[in-house]
Amino acid sequence: MEVYFDNSATTKPTEEVIEAVINGMREFYGNPSSLHKMGIKCDRELLSCREKLASLINCTKEEVYFTSGGSESNNMIIKGITKPGNHIIISNFEHPSVLSTCKELEEHGVKVTYLDVNSVGQIDIEQLEESICKDTVLVSIMHVNNEIGTIQDLERIGNLIKERSQRAKFHVDAVQSFGKFKIDVKKYKIDMLSVSAHKIHGPKGIGFCYIRKGLSLAPLISGGGQEKGFRSGTENLPSALGMVKAAEEISKNIESNFNKVTELKRYFIDKLQNIKDIKINSPLDNKISPYVLNVSFIGVRAEVLLHLLEEKDIYVSTGSACSSRHISTKGSHVLNAIGLTEKEITGAIRFSFSSFNTIEEVDYVIEVLRNSLTFLRRVKI
Amino acid sequence: MEVYFDNSATTKPTEEVIEAVINGMREFYGNPSSLHKMGIKCDRELLSCREKLASLINCTKEEVYFTSGGSESNNMIIKGITKPGNHIIISNFEHPSVLSTCKELEEHGVKVTYLDVNSVGQIDIEQLEESICKDTVLVSIMHVNNEIGTIQDLERIGNLIKERSQRAKFHVDAVQSFGKFKIDVKKYKIDMLSVSAHKIHGPKGIGFCYIRKGLSLAPLISGGGQEKGFRSGTENLPSALGMVKAAEEISKNIESNFNKVTELKRYFIDKLQNIKDIKINSPLDNKISPYVLNVSFIGVRAEVLLHLLEEKDIYVSTGSACSSRHISTKGSHVLNAIGLTEKEITGAIRFSFSSFNTIEEVDYVIEVLRNSLTFLRRVKI
Repeated sequence: MEVYFDNSATTKPTEEVIEAVINGMREFYGNPSSLHKMGIKCDRELLSCREKLASLINCTKEEVYFTSGGSESNNMIIKGITKPGNHIIISNFEHPSVLSTCKELEEHGVKVTYLDVNSVGQIDIEQLEESICKDTVLVSIMHVNNEIGTIQDLERIGNLIKERSQRAKFHVDAVQSFGKFKIDVKKYKIDMLSVSAHKIHGPKGIGFCYIRKGLSLAPLISGGGQEKGFRSGTENLPSALGMVKAAEEISKNIESNFNKVTELKRYFIDKLQNIKDIKINSPLDNKISPYVLNVSFIGVRAEVLLHLLEEKDIYVSTGSACSSRHISTKGSHVLNAIGLTEKEITGAIRFSFSSFNTIEEVDYVIEVLRNSLTFLRRVKI
Repeated sequence: MEVYFDNSATTKPTEEVIEAVINGMREFYGNPSSLHKMGIKCDRELLSCREKLASLINCTKEEVYFTSGGSESNNMIIKGITKPGNHIIISNFEHPSVLSTCKELEEHGVKVTYLDVNSVGQIDIEQLEESICKDTVLVSIMHVNNEIGTIQDLERIGNLIKERSQRAKFHVDAVQSFGKFKIDVKKYKIDMLSVSAHKIHGPKGIGFCYIRKGLSLAPLISGGGQEKGFRSGTENLPSALGMVKAAEEISKNIESNFNKVTELKRYFIDKLQNIKDIKINSPLDNKISPYVLNVSFIGVRAEVLLHLLEEKDIYVSTGSACSSRHISTKGSHVLNAIGLTEKEITGAIRFSFSSFNTIEEVDYVIEVLRNSLTFLRRVKI
């Protein structure tokens, strides 16, 4: 049995998504910027993609911009909206594409406040309130954390920002939540939002962002003036068609998928209770996404456990899977931020689910885990 | 008959390329950064992609970096290498992704010299020589121009730069030349190079750049640290596989494609001689790519002619087709740069070929052109 429990790292594209990409490559290969009817046909199709995505987050088609994915969206928005002397606020356990971007901006005269998070990863609303000042141009908070699944209270955060400042914009990194949670940019008072396709069974190399009408950003990629000048480069319509297919498919099943995955996680946690010396870092809780289950296996090195699992065709992550190979060995900044001990961090494994996973897969994983842990704890690797 | 003579704008992916992308989406959907064997399998495949691309331009696999395409590559390289106070040199008819990037940098304290080009679009080598100074960090010259096909003498330019400066790096935008002309980064003393896949029958949304070993760039997209920290974001392996398929296919036929397209252009120009009041802006000449034929139809508005052609299923461009919809109505900066009159610019059409085009298509286009021009010149639209 092959078990892919690494869906927060990336997902398998569905056959419907692959079909949509193939159709795009065959039928819509024209350049949407060309003036002739082949270009116009592609531009119309691209507009229809914008319209469909817009309807999923309650914005207009004019507010949807295509990018190459989540990292580009985050960089483009944060770098595009800030100038030297500005102040931005983020949490201390954002995705690296937000964190590194802010570290870079600090070197260019931008002030950054890093909000603490509590033991389940939620930001301190009072600290946010106190941090907003006259120079604050941006508050960037991820909707769902990629390593432990913490859900932030976007509505409360959005309201607070708008009460406290007319200047500060609210950006949400929704890479881990889009398609899994309902997002209403109006209701949550979100000004900008980042989404990636490959986390929802869509193609890699494509994403989109929502930028509220009236906002102006310096472009990250300048050139031919595509995407109303916000993002130049020939539009990637075939992948956009694949992304729309994935987004529509997952969005119409948000509730049933949520219930299915919640049961899966409940069952998994239940079975884990029989294994000793573990710590559940992302319990079943309405503040935490059911799509992520982060567990510390005390006294065990996560990489070693990961390799024992992969030998049995089980795929999981340690730390942030988006970049496990590139991150330093200091240990996950997310697990550090929620106050785990060194031992707990060393032994932390992330299981991340999609609606395609099954109870039988959990049973298999539990069995392999049990055997692997018995072995590891006996030989003390 | 449908005739696609807009191959400099974008190309139709071959079925082999589509197959490679499908295979990538089905078999290599893992995250190349994941530590488990599914990730490692993908990372190996990605490395093999780098190796294959490297062999085509005579660099090493460590010098190949994936991006979302030509515009991103150009932005990433030019913005990544320059700091306020630096000096860069480009020609005045580079692609908009180079030109706008330099205009942006000027606002941030970078000095830019725009080299003039002669009537066929070649840069003035003496002016280049005089322009290089102690602050010059970059000379960025496109290999083949996208609107009129001018080929620059990269070997002479590369040698000159290295003779005159130890500091100045040589960047080549090879978007219109890769796969059509042999590129040897060592021989031409190129330090950095930009390539896009969708101009060579590859997928959209993917490209690569060569960055010589030892060079360091500030990243345009920061985050998880992929591509050795130069370009973060989950690697787009399925599209990279499609790009490699396209690059290998086209590269092994460089000579035969070149000969075929040369004959096509020769035949086309020959037939055009019978049409009066035209000016060939890109004659058959060893300084101009046979893949591009730019013609001014005097006394005619190019957009109107374009629409008459598209009614007969013939697809061509006016101005730079990459962004025809977004460019101002001032008229092509390229045609201005080579000194065309306003009338010549107003009536300029670009026919751009691929090896899949045929003599029969040229015959059909000539027939439609003749009828359209007779009509237009009678009614004087």
